[in-house]
Amino acid sequence: MVKVAILGATGYTSLELIRILLRHPDVEITALSTRQEVSPHIHSVHPSLFGRLDLNCQNLSPAQVAERSDFVFCALPHGAAMAAVPELLAGGCRVCDLSADYRLTDPAVYEQWYGLVHTDPTRLGTTVYGLPELWAEKIPGHELIANPGCYTSASILGLAPLLCGGYIEPTGIIIDAKSGVSGAGRTPKLTTLYPECNENVTAYSVGRHRHTPEIDLILSQASHQSVEVVFTPHLVPMDRGILCSMYAQEAKDASEDDLLDALRAFYEGQPFIHIVEHLPATKDVAYTNYCDVTVRKSRGQVIVLSCIDNLIKGAAGVAVQNFNLMCGFAETTALLP
Amino acid sequence: MVKVAILGATGYTSLELIRILLRHPDVEITALSTRQEVSPHIHSVHPSLFGRLDLNCQNLSPAQVAERSDFVFCALPHGAAMAAVPELLAGGCRVCDLSADYRLTDPAVYEQWYGLVHTDPTRLGTTVYGLPELWAEKIPGHELIANPGCYTSASILGLAPLLCGGYIEPTGIIIDAKSGVSGAGRTPKLTTLYPECNENVTAYSVGRHRHTPEIDLILSQASHQSVEVVFTPHLVPMDRGILCSMYAQEAKDASEDDLLDALRAFYEGQPFIHIVEHLPATKDVAYTNYCDVTVRKSRGQVIVLSCIDNLIKGAAGVAVQNFNLMCGFAETTALLP
Amino acid sequence: MVKVAILGATGYTSLELIRILLRHPDVEITALSTRQEVSPHIHSVHPSLFGRLDLNCQNLSPAQVAERSDFVFCALPHGAAMAAVPELLAGGCRVCDLSADYRLTDPAVYEQWYGLVHTDPTRLGTTVYGLPELWAEKIPGHELIANPGCYTSASILGLAPLLCGGYIEPTGIIIDAKSGVSGAGRTPKLTTLYPECNENVTAYSVGRHRHTPEIDLILSQASHQSVEVVFTPHLVPMDRGILCSMYAQEAKDASEDDLLDALRAFYEGQPFIHIVEHLPATKDVAYTNYCDVTVRKSRGQVIVLSCIDNLIKGAAGVAVQNFNLMCGFAETTALLP
Amino acid sequence: MVKVAILGATGYTSLELIRILLRHPDVEITALSTRQEVSPHIHSVHPSLFGRLDLNCQNLSPAQVAERSDFVFCALPHGAAMAAVPELLAGGCRVCDLSADYRLTDPAVYEQWYGLVHTDPTRLGTTVYGLPELWAEKIPGHELIANPGCYTSASILGLAPLLCGGYIEPTGIIIDAKSGVSGAGRTPKLTTLYPECNENVTAYSVGRHRHTPEIDLILSQASHQSVEVVFTPHLVPMDRGILCSMYAQEAKDASEDDLLDALRAFYEGQPFIHIVEHLPATKDVAYTNYCDVTVRKSRGQVIVLSCIDNLIKGAAGVAVQNFNLMCGFAETTALLP
Repeated sequence: MVKVAILGATGYTSLELIRILLRHPDVEITALSTRQEVSPHIHSVHPSLFGRLDLNCQNLSPAQVAERSDFVFCALPHGAAMAAVPELLAGGCRVCDLSADYRLTDPAVYEQWYGLVHTDPTRLGTTVYGLPELWAEKIPGHELIANPGCYTSASILGLAPLLCGGYIEPTGIIIDAKSGVSGAGRTPKLTTLYPECNENVTAYSVGRHRHTPEIDLILSQASHQSVEVVFTPHLVPMDRGILCSMYAQEAKDASEDDLLDALRAFYEGQPFIHIVEHLPATKDVAYTNYCDVTVRKSRGQVIVLSCIDNLIKGAAGVAVQNFNLMCGFAETTALLP
Repeated sequence: MVKVAILGATGYTSLELIRILLRHPDVEITALSTRQEVSPHIHSVHPSLFGRLDLNCQNLSPAQVAERSDFVFCALPHGAAMAAVPELLAGGCRVCDLSADYRLTDPAVYEQWYGLVHTDPTRLGTTVYGLPELWAEKIPGHELIANPGCYTSASILGLAPLLCGGYIEPTGIIIDAKSGVSGAGRTPKLTTLYPECNENVTAYSVGRHRHTPEIDLILSQASHQSVEVVFTPHLVPMDRGILCSMYAQEAKDASEDDLLDALRAFYEGQPFIHIVEHLPATKDVAYTNYCDVTVRKSRGQVIVLSCIDNLIKGAAGVAVQNFNLMCGFAETTALLP
Repeated sequence: MVKVAILGATGYTSLELIRILLRHPDVEITALSTRQEVSPHIHSVHPSLFGRLDLNCQNLSPAQVAERSDFVFCALPHGAAMAAVPELLAGGCRVCDLSADYRLTDPAVYEQWYGLVHTDPTRLGTTVYGLPELWAEKIPGHELIANPGCYTSASILGLAPLLCGGYIEPTGIIIDAKSGVSGAGRTPKLTTLYPECNENVTAYSVGRHRHTPEIDLILSQASHQSVEVVFTPHLVPMDRGILCSMYAQEAKDASEDDLLDALRAFYEGQPFIHIVEHLPATKDVAYTNYCDVTVRKSRGQVIVLSCIDNLIKGAAGVAVQNFNLMCGFAETTALLP
Repeated sequence: MVKVAILGATGYTSLELIRILLRHPDVEITALSTRQEVSPHIHSVHPSLFGRLDLNCQNLSPAQVAERSDFVFCALPHGAAMAAVPELLAGGCRVCDLSADYRLTDPAVYEQWYGLVHTDPTRLGTTVYGLPELWAEKIPGHELIANPGCYTSASILGLAPLLCGGYIEPTGIIIDAKSGVSGAGRTPKLTTLYPECNENVTAYSVGRHRHTPEIDLILSQASHQSVEVVFTPHLVPMDRGILCSMYAQEAKDASEDDLLDALRAFYEGQPFIHIVEHLPATKDVAYTNYCDVTVRKSRGQVIVLSCIDNLIKGAAGVAVQNFNLMCGFAETTALLP
């Protein structure tokens, strides 16, 4: 039984983590932290947990968390995460960090996109990026895994096989992403107020979204070439789900069937990837750890469509997938719907 | 040309007010106030007004507002309204107050439900409640009108004719109201965050909602008897609209047709009331100043269904209706869709 | 391993049934029927099942279904169900019927509300109504169970304890119910088209909804008195969830705490009922088999608020709960989220 | 007073047409046609018109329509439109056709994309495409105008100025479009059922959408070069609104400010085009005839964001704009919100 703590337990991702971990036969949730001063019962924070978990959210120091747990899911905002992770590791915990703090490799790039000086730069270059479908074998031995961003996972899972196979050009790739509003977090803001988002679609952070360098980096690492994407996120009036519509110039002659076959071959045996022939829909993967992907061709462009549940395959689900791999459990434990 | 100011211009009601007043041939909007220190252009606050109104929102004192305008729509929260209204009136403005501050008649009842000592109690008992369908003739002569609450209008417009006609019992009336989220205002709050409201229905303020004494009072005044309602509001995942499903015991033998006739007779000549035979739907009145009402009978209960757009007939529309009556314009000016 | 068939596999309830049964360790799904002539793969009908169930939907006769299965979930419309059930039983299957065909006891009442002569009247009076929280002990021995309606379950679970305890009057009970659109089924209709339902709330079937006699009957049976409700359903723009706001006159002096205690005592040990102190929200029970209930008092009325997921606790979940009881499995198997 | 008929009055576009025309001081609506056999009152078809228009929808022949009206808005599906238009014109009516039947110029292209032989090919090449912002001066003299498609207008209005100014390359343009569900019409279909669309985003008709040749053609005509776009529409859970996110390679050095200036210059004096600096949102233009456009640059791509209300600027609003131009009324009559 692994004693598990969740830092930053009041958000949407943590609610999903708790739901998944309550199904996990080898997990006991032993601590829930919040940076607020009050210590509410978790079912006051997330009423859907009524009767399912009897724990309070407490303002715990990393040291206190480390005392109570073997493994920590760190769901703090960037900046706060890199302040806590070193102490958690020093306290003997293994950590899956769901923030962006350990996803990049270059402190200068981190500073450029996040506007913060990285305070744990040594680990920045050495932490494994936890995208199991790309390199599950790298994950087990580590004390710290950087859990991927939601847009990043959806984008990379669709593009990596075609880049690795040389089917598409590595630059000029357009990623037009549509996300449900839960991706924007649970802190009240005007931009995510119901009457602002409902009956509305809009792009945001055009050319400036922080998942851009992460997508570039991981796709470049995976395909051993310099990949550059134009990433445009949009907010769509729904709770959850990401659809990435991605456009790349074809780099060699291949039919849609060839491209589907390349995707299938790349993900053979992967339990959470569905290469489908129909057009994927966020609803089909909602509340699951699946990623549905297909591909079309039109006028010289390869169009890859990829969708996930942003809170599960885009955050809490892949975090538990990483946890399973780190701890030696079957990869799918607690993750099949 | 009436020079019009709007106090509290950043909210949803004020946006509707501006939209309606831009269509009004006898209105010039001359001032928009906010209690924030910055002075943004109104199209930064409400991007849908881009190119349609060239004014800044400013932190103006009531005296400054009074200098610039003849008529003020006061869309401040309760408490803030009664602090501003006396000065506006002293400055020579006529005022339509959209808050609850002048709707009740008894300062003690105000204090009980709003938790504030009323600072302008003299005007509390003398201000006319601006529900034109009940007493349009009372409205013209006054400097100050109390604009009704949204739930209140929808409830009263459905029940008043049947209470006045003696068709239903005045006590034990159940009002089960469903509102879109814009009714909760534009200040960011966890409870009105998109992922909290979407895919969700819940009751709130059960037995404690502040529109309760207002409904009791106006229905009692209108029907010359002591009316008491059990009022239960619900939040429904949509932007706008209120449906009140109201249940009262029948007080005398009358068929559904008799009841519909009574409603039609009561509202004869009213431009904004539709007595319909089908079941009304909030969508049918959205973006209009109409109120659709019907009635059914079942097992000794008279069921009245009434719906409005909470921001228009429930706030900005009826405010302009009151303005038209106060200023001697045709009641429907700028209000026909 | 129980061989399970689902009749009428193309609807929303059947999709939920399949999802739940795929988690059930003692179930093998062996047949999926449709009354359409084509035989599509189930993942063409429900794309979210891609890669999770490899079966075609076929136009099977009851006899063919009986050959392939031990247990049948009959998710056909009323009328079609009573045409199939006798043959399924004759073929040796046990059956959980999700239609209304076996829920009532009197063929005349059935004919009055459903407009059909009942063709299997003998079983009408003898079939157990499968609401486990009321009479789980009655369910195991039977070959046929009538699965409750969605509104019915939500209503009864909230009211039964207070009626049984004599806390509320048995007549004049107002049930104002709000449902997500999935409750209206998957057959394309103008009334459930997206742009008709979205941004809209409306009542429907006022005084005429077919769950009325079912609620009357079961509450009367449970509380040994003649119960009569005024039931008004509303359609709310969300996928799933039912909230019943129920108003009854208090029959004896009891505080809110007394009423909450009565509810807790009635449901002691029930795994799927949460008596909560906060106001329940459909979102909190979405995708679960839970029913959240609370109670308030206001002006002599007892207000009971009860919510469920209409497709799970209101249909597929309680069906599997009944299946578990009929087959001797733990009641919660495959049903904990 | 122009006598106006609407053919195909039961759809969403026709509802918007009626709403707009009821505000038009020079219009009398004299006929509403439907191809159904029954003749319902228009308020049975569109309950929001209760009390606002007293006409029945009738199954009228083109000749009967021509007898009753001077001007016809033909809101029939493609195929049905080209069957009716010649008779309407022969009957002396002027016509604004909202279908696709007269938008293209080449019968072979029409047949390729619509799967029908064009039965009025002579008019196919000679009918003016009614996009007033491109060529308002061409519209007045004609008896028949082809009203643009919704995606088409949103796309062209964003791209035309930059193509005409040589700022972007004419090929390889990606148009990633997001539309509300009303764009799919009012005929009940599984794909537009509420529970299918809600909480869902998906692409459809990838590489095959019929607005593709229309966009190619009009942009080519407008910019005097061969333009080719990759057009991918998506369905988004909202009633109305289209956002086009468009990606083109820059063709010459120009800053974002240069591009915004080019857009402003191109549309100088146009009453319905807003060149904005913020990112446009469908909500800001909902229920209006406005089109909000902005532009960004990222990594060598010019990103144009354009949004409209698909039922108004994308259909009924531009139709009335064309009507105004055809009849010599001020272009904005009845169209300012």
